[in-house]
Amino acid sequence: MARAAVLGASGYLGGELLRLLTNHPRLAIAQVVSSGHPGTSLAALHPELPALAGLTTVAGADAVDADLAFLAQPPGEAMKVVPGLLERGIKVVDLGPDYRLPSPELYAATYGMPHADPAHLSEAVYGLTEWFSEPVRSARLVANPGCYPTATLLALAPLLAAGELAGPVIVDAKSGTSGAGAALTAATHHPEAALTVQPYGLPSHRHLPEMRSALERLDTPAPPLVFVPHLVPVVRGILCSIYPTPAPAAHPDSWADALRAAYAGSPFVHVGGPPRLGWATGTNHAFLSVTRSGEAPVLFSALDNLGKGGAAQAIQNANLMLGLPADAGLTAAGFGV
Amino acid sequence: MARAAVLGASGYLGGELLRLLTNHPRLAIAQVVSSGHPGTSLAALHPELPALAGLTTVAGADAVDADLAFLAQPPGEAMKVVPGLLERGIKVVDLGPDYRLPSPELYAATYGMPHADPAHLSEAVYGLTEWFSEPVRSARLVANPGCYPTATLLALAPLLAAGELAGPVIVDAKSGTSGAGAALTAATHHPEAALTVQPYGLPSHRHLPEMRSALERLDTPAPPLVFVPHLVPVVRGILCSIYPTPAPAAHPDSWADALRAAYAGSPFVHVGGPPRLGWATGTNHAFLSVTRSGEAPVLFSALDNLGKGGAAQAIQNANLMLGLPADAGLTAAGFGV
Amino acid sequence: MARAAVLGASGYLGGELLRLLTNHPRLAIAQVVSSGHPGTSLAALHPELPALAGLTTVAGADAVDADLAFLAQPPGEAMKVVPGLLERGIKVVDLGPDYRLPSPELYAATYGMPHADPAHLSEAVYGLTEWFSEPVRSARLVANPGCYPTATLLALAPLLAAGELAGPVIVDAKSGTSGAGAALTAATHHPEAALTVQPYGLPSHRHLPEMRSALERLDTPAPPLVFVPHLVPVVRGILCSIYPTPAPAAHPDSWADALRAAYAGSPFVHVGGPPRLGWATGTNHAFLSVTRSGEAPVLFSALDNLGKGGAAQAIQNANLMLGLPADAGLTAAGFGV
Amino acid sequence: MARAAVLGASGYLGGELLRLLTNHPRLAIAQVVSSGHPGTSLAALHPELPALAGLTTVAGADAVDADLAFLAQPPGEAMKVVPGLLERGIKVVDLGPDYRLPSPELYAATYGMPHADPAHLSEAVYGLTEWFSEPVRSARLVANPGCYPTATLLALAPLLAAGELAGPVIVDAKSGTSGAGAALTAATHHPEAALTVQPYGLPSHRHLPEMRSALERLDTPAPPLVFVPHLVPVVRGILCSIYPTPAPAAHPDSWADALRAAYAGSPFVHVGGPPRLGWATGTNHAFLSVTRSGEAPVLFSALDNLGKGGAAQAIQNANLMLGLPADAGLTAAGFGV
Repeated sequence: MARAAVLGASGYLGGELLRLLTNHPRLAIAQVVSSGHPGTSLAALHPELPALAGLTTVAGADAVDADLAFLAQPPGEAMKVVPGLLERGIKVVDLGPDYRLPSPELYAATYGMPHADPAHLSEAVYGLTEWFSEPVRSARLVANPGCYPTATLLALAPLLAAGELAGPVIVDAKSGTSGAGAALTAATHHPEAALTVQPYGLPSHRHLPEMRSALERLDTPAPPLVFVPHLVPVVRGILCSIYPTPAPAAHPDSWADALRAAYAGSPFVHVGGPPRLGWATGTNHAFLSVTRSGEAPVLFSALDNLGKGGAAQAIQNANLMLGLPADAGLTAAGFGV
Repeated sequence: MARAAVLGASGYLGGELLRLLTNHPRLAIAQVVSSGHPGTSLAALHPELPALAGLTTVAGADAVDADLAFLAQPPGEAMKVVPGLLERGIKVVDLGPDYRLPSPELYAATYGMPHADPAHLSEAVYGLTEWFSEPVRSARLVANPGCYPTATLLALAPLLAAGELAGPVIVDAKSGTSGAGAALTAATHHPEAALTVQPYGLPSHRHLPEMRSALERLDTPAPPLVFVPHLVPVVRGILCSIYPTPAPAAHPDSWADALRAAYAGSPFVHVGGPPRLGWATGTNHAFLSVTRSGEAPVLFSALDNLGKGGAAQAIQNANLMLGLPADAGLTAAGFGV
Repeated sequence: MARAAVLGASGYLGGELLRLLTNHPRLAIAQVVSSGHPGTSLAALHPELPALAGLTTVAGADAVDADLAFLAQPPGEAMKVVPGLLERGIKVVDLGPDYRLPSPELYAATYGMPHADPAHLSEAVYGLTEWFSEPVRSARLVANPGCYPTATLLALAPLLAAGELAGPVIVDAKSGTSGAGAALTAATHHPEAALTVQPYGLPSHRHLPEMRSALERLDTPAPPLVFVPHLVPVVRGILCSIYPTPAPAAHPDSWADALRAAYAGSPFVHVGGPPRLGWATGTNHAFLSVTRSGEAPVLFSALDNLGKGGAAQAIQNANLMLGLPADAGLTAAGFGV
Repeated sequence: MARAAVLGASGYLGGELLRLLTNHPRLAIAQVVSSGHPGTSLAALHPELPALAGLTTVAGADAVDADLAFLAQPPGEAMKVVPGLLERGIKVVDLGPDYRLPSPELYAATYGMPHADPAHLSEAVYGLTEWFSEPVRSARLVANPGCYPTATLLALAPLLAAGELAGPVIVDAKSGTSGAGAALTAATHHPEAALTVQPYGLPSHRHLPEMRSALERLDTPAPPLVFVPHLVPVVRGILCSIYPTPAPAAHPDSWADALRAAYAGSPFVHVGGPPRLGWATGTNHAFLSVTRSGEAPVLFSALDNLGKGGAAQAIQNANLMLGLPADAGLTAAGFGV
């Protein structure tokens, strides 16, 4: 039984990691770290996880004694602890953004602070698992992708790789409010969030540089991307409605088959009709769809921002890094309703 | 045209007051006071009210020059400004709790602070309009009831007055999240509020002393009240499910008629089948229903916590205080959907 | 006092018409017609409208005796009764699609049935009020626009008229479920609709021909339109996120001013920050916003599908047709929350 | 590996059974039976269950070849097929109501049709697992309890058994809309269900006789029960707010401990603070809480109507009937958000 620590246990991604790990047959919870709530009984912090009621949170990364640490912390925190963890031989999956971008310069421009650990930034493997499984297997540091990039890239990568796209790609994303995290904000205050659809992140969203650089990592020519996220009044789930401009010689009628072929080896990425968000809730599954509006091709991509877009993909990456079966702990299915 | 000031314009009750006043044919907005956001354009504070786009908030109660002031402030604020307003001949409808309870002692015990204006506390008229319309007409200070007491008392008062009730009355109340106000809380954070029903205010809710003392004002024998509020994932509206213990000689089959008779003179209180919350949304209307579960009588009472349970009833009271038609500015109907 | 009849009173648009008319100072309800529920007390059909409790529905268009009839019926019904109504000197605002398209051929191709009244089809004025107010004033038959076309055209018409747009315009629309009507469907079954975002109307939506022909009526060069509607789990409201391709010489920085100028004379169309759906709920107001994502311009347009996108715009048109003030009965403001 | 058939696969309980079974380590899906959708690919019927994409539904109970059959059908269907299944040595867990009541007379009075299989009615074991585990282990026919009875009885049974309750018990239940099933109804039409709380099942709900007779099976003196269910705008989950009348010598301060003691041996029933519905979503867990309102004791009980209130408890029962570990296939935890 491999052993994992979870840092940032009081946030939503940390909670989802713990939820999934309580049902993981090969990876045990070694420590639960919460800087904000040290010394707290898990029974109080996560009453939804009775199996953990006997645990208590510990305060710092120094207390970690495990094969792998999951970091689910705000921007800027992971890069403070990663060097120490790696030094002590502890593998890391970082669910935050600290190691997702290719250069300290781009990180500083995007997150408004200098990168504290450029040495490991260049070592980190971008953990879009279906596309980087080989480097993930041998990585000691994986940057788990953001929820929006995961949803967008799973749909676009096969088509870009095949040269089917040109010109701008418009991504109109709809996200549940859990994606905005546990911090209280007016945008996620129920009376102001429940009856509307809120565009945000304009004129530029932090996930756009991540998407662009991920496409560079894939050696695909990245088209201009227009990305507009919206908060919708659901809790979990992202639906990306994607409006691509096909290349002159493209064959949109073949796109669904191209997506199926690209993910034939993955138990987690599926191609079919327009997806319902619940199908992905709590799981590592993503659902893709290709259709058209008039003559224009339209793609849909759905996943759970806390699942395949967060904690579940982190476990998928950890499984590879630890030599465990790819789907260990990730076999639960999503909801019909 | 009478002139009204609104204090506390940035809260939900203040916003609803402004919304209703923009459509009031006999009462104009004289000043908009916001201590938290003075000097703010209404176009920024309330973009949903284009008719007010040219106004700017002012800072203090001293700036009020009006026939009547609506106070929509947190507990403890109104009692600081009421003496000055009354001194200057400005009538007051206080939507907060400062003048709802009959004694400084009960106020201190309930709100955890001494009452700063006991002289006017005893003068204040409790503005459950249908039951206190005569004193409201001649009042210069009206304490507008809380949302839960309004919903509960409208259903119970006629039956208590007729001696139909004895023993405990259980009120299981379900409220939309706007009732919790604009302040950010975990209980009203969308991801934690949207998919559940949250009991709160236990073991004792501040509205219980208000309900008890209102019944005393009505000279009705008050039975033991058990009151448990729950937040439900809607924004506006309260449904009280009321389980009374009938008196030995009671005739529950006559209760619906008794309620109809009690409110025959009101354009705002209706008796029929189990109500839908939307019927009351944005209005001064309340909907009552009498039914039974097995042999046990059950009552339902529905209203909009920001409407009849707040800003709309405040305007109803102001209309009476200013000699305006009872329904002036309150003629809009609620929603089918 | 002018007198109006409402046909199709049991549907959501019919209910909203009745709700607004109960508060209209110059237009009274003459008859309520419901083929599906004739002889029904309004107290039963619309318990949210206590002011109408004394009315009873009548069965057929022949019973209409009024200055103007609002038709809120399924496709194919209006064209059966319009000739008779006009013959008897009764003006008509049709909220359904029967008279929105310019030719019987396009109607047949879009709605799958022949048009029964081509003579009046060519006479009908398209009631996008802000753009066709003069012909509406003198019309006896107005085709009230669909909710999506209203939201889309209000944003696009000024920019198209100014030659600012070229190439494709992508409209990603999010609509509340009331837009799908009162008929029970799996897509609007609460357990299947509440936790997701549902694209629909693919590969082609009936509103697309309406949008294209409306642009032709405006004599603007219509660019290719890609229109994808989604159901979101709110009840009322549409948000269109619009991704236009600017013309080579366009100045997107001036677009907000262009929109403001275009609607300077309208009390109902506003330009500002990204709108919240509640601002428009129950009203005739529409809210437009111009922003950008990176360098790409993005427009947002919000309204209530049953309000400006339906019953409220119908009353706006009726006001003009009957010589009443443009905002009569439409002065209520939307919700902050 | 034991083998199970699922009858009624197109309903919500059937879908949830399949979802849980795809992740069950000891119980495989042998056949999926759907009278309404025979010959349908599971890929079409349940796209959220990719693991079943290769299966096809079969039409009738005669096709069942399995160790155990789960029946998830409308009232009246199970009693037609149970005799044949038992005859062929196939154990049965019936999720519908056909075998829950103790006599054919009570069944006929409650469901309005004669019971077709009175012989097995008296044999059936009532599957409130924590209270009837021994008879369930040896049963060949288990009547899985309704969702409301499960939530109510788990809270009340220990207190009734201890003689702590007397006089009426009021149960104000709030249920998600999935409890009303997949059949389209006005009460579950999103525009009419999403913004309100709907009491229903008055004056008498079918679950009341089931609760009363379950208490008789427990040999506890059943107090008068007042049960009022409400639909709230969530999809999954039930919260029962329970207002009991304590016996004269009762000690409500000890009730939480009494509940903890009663369920010390169960991994699925927990006692703590007021529960959030999400904690139980998709699981077999139930959460109980004891608090008070003033001096009056109040209990809360939460579970997932499709989980512990349906499919998950059915699997818990099947595990016992087949000699499998009690928690096999039921180890997933609920959601924090």
